[in-house]
Amino acid sequence: MKQVPFKGIISYPITPFDKQEKVDIPLFKTQVERLVAAGSHGIAPLGSTGVLPYLTDAEKEAVTEAAIEQVAGRVPVLVGVSNLTTERTIYHAQFAEKAGATAIMIIPMSYWKLTDDEIVKHYDAVASKINVPIMAYNNPAIGGVDMSPALLKRLLEIPNVTMIKESTGDVQRMHFLKRELGEEVAFYNGSNPLALAAFAAGATGWCTAASNLIPGLNIGLYNAIQQNDLKSAQSIFLKQIDLLRFIVATGLPRSIKAGLELIGVEGGELRRPLQALSTTETAQLESILKGLGLV
Amino acid sequence: MKQVPFKGIISYPITPFDKQEKVDIPLFKTQVERLVAAGSHGIAPLGSTGVLPYLTDAEKEAVTEAAIEQVAGRVPVLVGVSNLTTERTIYHAQFAEKAGATAIMIIPMSYWKLTDDEIVKHYDAVASKINVPIMAYNNPAIGGVDMSPALLKRLLEIPNVTMIKESTGDVQRMHFLKRELGEEVAFYNGSNPLALAAFAAGATGWCTAASNLIPGLNIGLYNAIQQNDLKSAQSIFLKQIDLLRFIVATGLPRSIKAGLELIGVEGGELRRPLQALSTTETAQLESILKGLGLV
Amino acid sequence: MKQVPFKGIISYPITPFDKQEKVDIPLFKTQVERLVAAGSHGIAPLGSTGVLPYLTDAEKEAVTEAAIEQVAGRVPVLVGVSNLTTERTIYHAQFAEKAGATAIMIIPMSYWKLTDDEIVKHYDAVASKINVPIMAYNNPAIGGVDMSPALLKRLLEIPNVTMIKESTGDVQRMHFLKRELGEEVAFYNGSNPLALAAFAAGATGWCTAASNLIPGLNIGLYNAIQQNDLKSAQSIFLKQIDLLRFIVATGLPRSIKAGLELIGVEGGELRRPLQALSTTETAQLESILKGLGLV
Amino acid sequence: MKQVPFKGIISYPITPFDKQEKVDIPLFKTQVERLVAAGSHGIAPLGSTGVLPYLTDAEKEAVTEAAIEQVAGRVPVLVGVSNLTTERTIYHAQFAEKAGATAIMIIPMSYWKLTDDEIVKHYDAVASKINVPIMAYNNPAIGGVDMSPALLKRLLEIPNVTMIKESTGDVQRMHFLKRELGEEVAFYNGSNPLALAAFAAGATGWCTAASNLIPGLNIGLYNAIQQNDLKSAQSIFLKQIDLLRFIVATGLPRSIKAGLELIGVEGGELRRPLQALSTTETAQLESILKGLGLV
Repeated sequence: MKQVPFKGIISYPITPFDKQEKVDIPLFKTQVERLVAAGSHGIAPLGSTGVLPYLTDAEKEAVTEAAIEQVAGRVPVLVGVSNLTTERTIYHAQFAEKAGATAIMIIPMSYWKLTDDEIVKHYDAVASKINVPIMAYNNPAIGGVDMSPALLKRLLEIPNVTMIKESTGDVQRMHFLKRELGEEVAFYNGSNPLALAAFAAGATGWCTAASNLIPGLNIGLYNAIQQNDLKSAQSIFLKQIDLLRFIVATGLPRSIKAGLELIGVEGGELRRPLQALSTTETAQLESILKGLGLV
Repeated sequence: MKQVPFKGIISYPITPFDKQEKVDIPLFKTQVERLVAAGSHGIAPLGSTGVLPYLTDAEKEAVTEAAIEQVAGRVPVLVGVSNLTTERTIYHAQFAEKAGATAIMIIPMSYWKLTDDEIVKHYDAVASKINVPIMAYNNPAIGGVDMSPALLKRLLEIPNVTMIKESTGDVQRMHFLKRELGEEVAFYNGSNPLALAAFAAGATGWCTAASNLIPGLNIGLYNAIQQNDLKSAQSIFLKQIDLLRFIVATGLPRSIKAGLELIGVEGGELRRPLQALSTTETAQLESILKGLGLV
Repeated sequence: MKQVPFKGIISYPITPFDKQEKVDIPLFKTQVERLVAAGSHGIAPLGSTGVLPYLTDAEKEAVTEAAIEQVAGRVPVLVGVSNLTTERTIYHAQFAEKAGATAIMIIPMSYWKLTDDEIVKHYDAVASKINVPIMAYNNPAIGGVDMSPALLKRLLEIPNVTMIKESTGDVQRMHFLKRELGEEVAFYNGSNPLALAAFAAGATGWCTAASNLIPGLNIGLYNAIQQNDLKSAQSIFLKQIDLLRFIVATGLPRSIKAGLELIGVEGGELRRPLQALSTTETAQLESILKGLGLV
Repeated sequence: MKQVPFKGIISYPITPFDKQEKVDIPLFKTQVERLVAAGSHGIAPLGSTGVLPYLTDAEKEAVTEAAIEQVAGRVPVLVGVSNLTTERTIYHAQFAEKAGATAIMIIPMSYWKLTDDEIVKHYDAVASKINVPIMAYNNPAIGGVDMSPALLKRLLEIPNVTMIKESTGDVQRMHFLKRELGEEVAFYNGSNPLALAAFAAGATGWCTAASNLIPGLNIGLYNAIQQNDLKSAQSIFLKQIDLLRFIVATGLPRSIKAGLELIGVEGGELRRPLQALSTTETAQLESILKGLGLV
């Protein structure tokens, strides 16, 4: 069995900024602490939620170190190291490994649509330079390239590519992975509104920013699945579906920041071009959170 | 609670033709009998699988009567009556009711993209002329129009529109229906590869032609769900996923006919322009059926 | 050079109905006469504009005969004979030929997505039974199947398939046809808002219902192109683009009927499920026609 | 009339690298010189062709200075300054202005899908900090966000946003801009295979990397349009359509580099993850160039 250090609810912190649009490391550590304390099974800094590509190299390094320091080994840490060029991806992967990351996550960020061969060589070049496991992340809406199940299968032949994060929102991809690769493959769901279907399809975990706001419901869903209790899973999932849809529709960094503030937690500022939720959007979010008894 | 006469596995027979491309009613009845005997919870003649729009009015009437006669009240019968014009839809709906159909199914077949108002008026005009319940069928790939969840909600306000068949393959539509309409709504899955996700989302039944070939696996999935046993459901679903995908990819009438012949059952002929599966396709199907121990 | 009897503006009459939703043949003939008198280079009854698939066989035959009788040889007549089954398409093609049609038009109407082989066999079966030329019509939005340029090339190998009508709205298809088939191919534009780009790409004609309302502008565009005067063509095209977009967005039968009435010509009734334009839509159309000095 | 310094063929140089994947400035200057000498009406460094987002800040600055120095005022220079964050976009815009750029080009690079308000504020923040004109660049395939015609209209209200580059490949967008904004708007085509349709629609210029290989044909098309000679324009366009399609399908940096080498010009290396064309692709390109008498 390949090395698969993650399962359950893998929580994605946002990267908060101060009024001058500088990364606010102390606030970031507070937010990471909340996620660990709430029972997250893993922490994933520098994901899309953490606006990875908006950060300078120095900022990425500071966030990596802060996350690992704050988590302090209580749960595994998955660090995002995606970059447009292969050389920079290797650089950040090596930094994360040295800093103590449990594993790293890579999405093939595409400007020019990459060929399958370019993507395989990209992962291979990074994998050969590090020893921690890699989670390959497929998210065409974010990365601009849709890795087919066949391509994902090729990537899994690289020894330390051991995990797949699927965010296409297409449950068929998960059936394919399960069918083709059986017990060998660990796949993770990255599409929030697909959480129930993904667990039903056999997902090992759920990569989510929702746990910044509703960790109990997220973990509750996972537990019901672990207990093979579909009826409870369905019921607990339906409670959270409105919030899951809302945070995806309005964008994770914007909606999580707004949600934190609505439930009385400091959210920090956004970095431009991102702007705060509109008044209408904020009211919608408040109404959803009220329905959950959170405000 | 609205009138919802269907649950479980609703089986779709093909419409077999003879060498002169005439409908073969005796063979059709034999095939319907197989579906009932196999344990189907309902029978649905004149669906897409039954090439409804390829038939003349007289042929549709003969098929309707043959199905109802053969089933003989053992399970409920759902008759497809969709037509491009409102007037003809009313005609066939009234015929089906008089012939003894338990309910009818209507997809808004679109040539010119219909507006929401045109669709509501279409259903309303038919519903006001009959007393049996109506299943509204959403399948943009077949009908050319995608009924939004909001439109489906409007349709459900028509008293005898009591059931929704969703074939977009998008599990989110089902979550929406469940979330919005709660216990009031019965929705059915019409996308074969989505069967597991749909049941996990709370589907009342599965409209499928797969039961012409693998009724045991189809019913087994439903039973596992009824027993709240997700692990078994997942396992039994993974066994059938390849066949489900194949029959959708190659088209239900063509693949079911071919599959029947491979397992030693008479399949009849197709009506042109439909052509038999190619040699390559037939070999693929044979290989899948072999994997299931059926050939 | 293959037999290509059409060029310029090929006008599509609507099929008007009376209050009882019966086809109004006298009114239809009046509308055909208007199109001929306005200078149309061809007349095409039983197109999408004429709601072909909403009609019974007898109605199709009456419309075919009425159109040919009214045109009386002044311009060529292109009769739509598309049908879901091959057998019925042959029937209507033979009827049209015997009635005096100059050529027939066939779109592969798809319920089940047809394979390329099924489509080729469909055209071939019809072509072998008649002697008039065939225009192959590609319109995925209407017919449900998108014939690739490679498939169109295969169809053109059938001796009496001599014309292509392209309605994808993708000018690249036209460049491909021109590049691949050179002077051998006559292609016609069926996407109204693409009229200028299509003529610039070398289209032989424009199949349009717009000439029910603005024949002068339609013919003016064609004439400017014939005179190699791009600047005038662009100018005359920009005058009509708003109307072209409107009639496509709201559907040709509905918008042409409404437009006729706005300019003081009898439009007849629609057959359900089609409904008249909404009040808002009618006001938009009136405003566009006012801008053109027509109301 | 707003300030519009560009017309005709605006040529996009690639950014060549050396064996160590470092930017090769001397080779870049040679390539820029070829483009000017061939008759380009403008030069646009740091576009997509120049792999802008693959470069460090220092590399972008060196390329900007090299391009402006080499062009030496013979034609206007359009510098790409797009960046994910607003702050960095301002920085590069100011650098380009100080270095002597005639205008700058900005595509709203999206990681999280930006809202219309976020995009307007992004352009506004940059525009308020510089005095040179801005070309707003719409290319959903590259940037991940599709700016609607309505949004482009909002952007044009910002005083120094004076030009639109449209690369959706949808000629309707251009008709809309022309119709809505009349003589006030200068729009440029960025979709190579759409060059003829775009000029027919009134495009002021064509932003292209094709002029690295076939400047004569590109300029010839523009000249025919200027002379209102559509027949010649069509003929000269059809000669180049295969090459235009090929370079788009395989990606501009990869195909231009390969094409340069096939015609005997030094192309430099690519930066990973980009890889050289495959052997098959190279053979296809060679065959196209042979057909044009270039190899």
